Amino acid sequence: MEILVRYGEIGLKSEPIRKNLEEILRKNIIKLLRKYEIDCDVKILHRRLLVKINTKGKEDLALKLLKKVSGIVSYSPVYECRLDINEIIDYAIQIMKKKLKELNKDNPTFAVKTKRSNKQFPFTSMEVNKRVGEAIVEKLGLEVDLENPDITLGIEISKENAYLFTERYEGIGGLPAGSQGRALCLISDGIDSPVAAFMMIRRGCRAVLLHLKITEEALNKVRRIVEVLSDYDTELEFVVYDFSKDIEDIAEKLKSIKKDNFTCIFCKRKMLKIAEKYAKYLDCDAIVTGDNLGQVASQTLKNLRVIGEDIKYPILRPLIGLDKNDIVKIAKEIGTYEISTEKEIRCPYLPKHPKTIAKPEDIKKIKEKVKLT
Amino acid sequence: MEILVRYGEIGLKSEPIRKNLEEILRKNIIKLLRKYEIDCDVKILHRRLLVKINTKGKEDLALKLLKKVSGIVSYSPVYECRLDINEIIDYAIQIMKKKLKELNKDNPTFAVKTKRSNKQFPFTSMEVNKRVGEAIVEKLGLEVDLENPDITLGIEISKENAYLFTERYEGIGGLPAGSQGRALCLISDGIDSPVAAFMMIRRGCRAVLLHLKITEEALNKVRRIVEVLSDYDTELEFVVYDFSKDIEDIAEKLKSIKKDNFTCIFCKRKMLKIAEKYAKYLDCDAIVTGDNLGQVASQTLKNLRVIGEDIKYPILRPLIGLDKNDIVKIAKEIGTYEISTEKEIRCPYLPKHPKTIAKPEDIKKIKEKVKLT
Repeated sequence: MEILVRYGEIGLKSEPIRKNLEEILRKNIIKLLRKYEIDCDVKILHRRLLVKINTKGKEDLALKLLKKVSGIVSYSPVYECRLDINEIIDYAIQIMKKKLKELNKDNPTFAVKTKRSNKQFPFTSMEVNKRVGEAIVEKLGLEVDLENPDITLGIEISKENAYLFTERYEGIGGLPAGSQGRALCLISDGIDSPVAAFMMIRRGCRAVLLHLKITEEALNKVRRIVEVLSDYDTELEFVVYDFSKDIEDIAEKLKSIKKDNFTCIFCKRKMLKIAEKYAKYLDCDAIVTGDNLGQVASQTLKNLRVIGEDIKYPILRPLIGLDKNDIVKIAKEIGTYEISTEKEIRCPYLPKHPKTIAKPEDIKKIKEKVKLT
Repeated sequence: MEILVRYGEIGLKSEPIRKNLEEILRKNIIKLLRKYEIDCDVKILHRRLLVKINTKGKEDLALKLLKKVSGIVSYSPVYECRLDINEIIDYAIQIMKKKLKELNKDNPTFAVKTKRSNKQFPFTSMEVNKRVGEAIVEKLGLEVDLENPDITLGIEISKENAYLFTERYEGIGGLPAGSQGRALCLISDGIDSPVAAFMMIRRGCRAVLLHLKITEEALNKVRRIVEVLSDYDTELEFVVYDFSKDIEDIAEKLKSIKKDNFTCIFCKRKMLKIAEKYAKYLDCDAIVTGDNLGQVASQTLKNLRVIGEDIKYPILRPLIGLDKNDIVKIAKEIGTYEISTEKEIRCPYLPKHPKTIAKPEDIKKIKEKVKLT
């Protein structure tokens, strides 16, 4: 099976950058398919990639996997033929016959949509549409419907070949994973942080996932989430830091001065401080969190402020402008939702009344009393 | 006309917080409608709001405007009737008759969907569906189709009244504007920053918009964008700072040491420094930017890092995980896209080859040579 792959934003770049991104995309496709033991060849055409699946019996899996490669906007299994109008027509008839059998519908309508990037080809897109369309009407007796056809036959005329197809799958868009640098993503077993990491992978980041472990149970969920995410970035890195002593220390110290309502704030401050160290050590340029605004009482602008102060790296919060619904929808699409929600692990240190509006002065005062980050 | 308004996330909050958010939402609705000279009363029901439009002839406008109020998930023009099954049935028949005329379709199908928050009402939701449905079949001869009906008659049974409706409009969701604190949003005449500001308004921020003016032409576009945004947050604030001297100074100094490729970076650093001052002065807790990743060559993780260093407020970048397509789609929906794109105003200081990968050391070295922020 051959699959024609289309990209989006990559096409807007200057030629040297585009070529570089095309090459990263090519390699990312090969790596993901190889992970699932699918052998393939990927050729770069003019603003398209052509993926040839060599492993028999895994074509459907390959089609599913391309949905996970960032940078791809859409893709189609194609029939390749020579740049000859009669050969194109012959192929078109064969493909339509096959599709008609699959569709099994009375009086199906069709449309032909040609895209010609090869301007040397002697027929314009409109002429190809007309010739192929007429042949289909004549030989198969179908009716044309340009508005809402049952079957859309796509034809792309490139430099070396013509590609015919009837299916078009949507990709996730974005830019090829790893093309935009390394980001340290804090990851927990909840719904949000895996979505945040995914969004930055989709925008081209290499994800360096850091889990701050409190319980073994949560870590096990995180491992499975990381496995899901590693389809989107096959080269992601995963680091676990044992956070149990840190959080215990924070909780104890705050309790001793009757400020345990600040536990979440000092916990998150510490998490970011550790993330900062790892970012430096692992050569990342940003820290990514699943923060959002107003979902729970402690997610206030004022708390964000005191939590993030003194961090030397940009903190990227891709979910900050999204509703919970939006986030859940993405989590379901990417396959992390089920894992995140199968069993909620409540933080054992969660105070009864978490501070919702912490001020920089509050933090300062507490730090004067007990040694905390 | 009476309109039943449904919210989403507000319903997940504890009672005191929910009551507070309901009240802010109520006031936001009144303020927006009043801006367009529509008089209304807004009553808070159990997990619903009821908007009564008093100004005749502006009902359609009111329906359009509710699409701009953050916190609203959906809304329906309703017929109110007493909590009496026979009265409900009578109303249902009248409403269906009216709807049939509007629809003008052969053999239309229908479904009844009841939601009963008032558990005192003597019929269950299922029983109401059945009774009302049977009456419609009998009196109007319509056919039931629960899967894909032409008309869906909704019935909500609340504490005091029943509400019947056939239309359901989608709102923008989120949380009521102004409920989550003040955010200083940098705004230009481009596509991105107005979308970023909108997203934070939708998540409940009060938007304090700051435009750093370089040209009069761009400022005029920004004024019109602000007018559009002020429907989403009727109390947004708008501040203009004359940035022309600052950018001139930056460009000159960098040119003098042959480092004009750093112009964008020092320009953005200065912008954030000014934003920081305004955030403090105008009592905001965060700075919001339209930053995204990898759209243009200078939007790299490394540049984000050197641009944002030393800023004492959290920098929220709600677009950081989105594709250009996503951003354009939102800009079109909210009505800023046309203004942003009608005439592109290129920055006169844009260097030929903007630095794509700036390091903290580069910034330090330049600052040792010339006085820059």
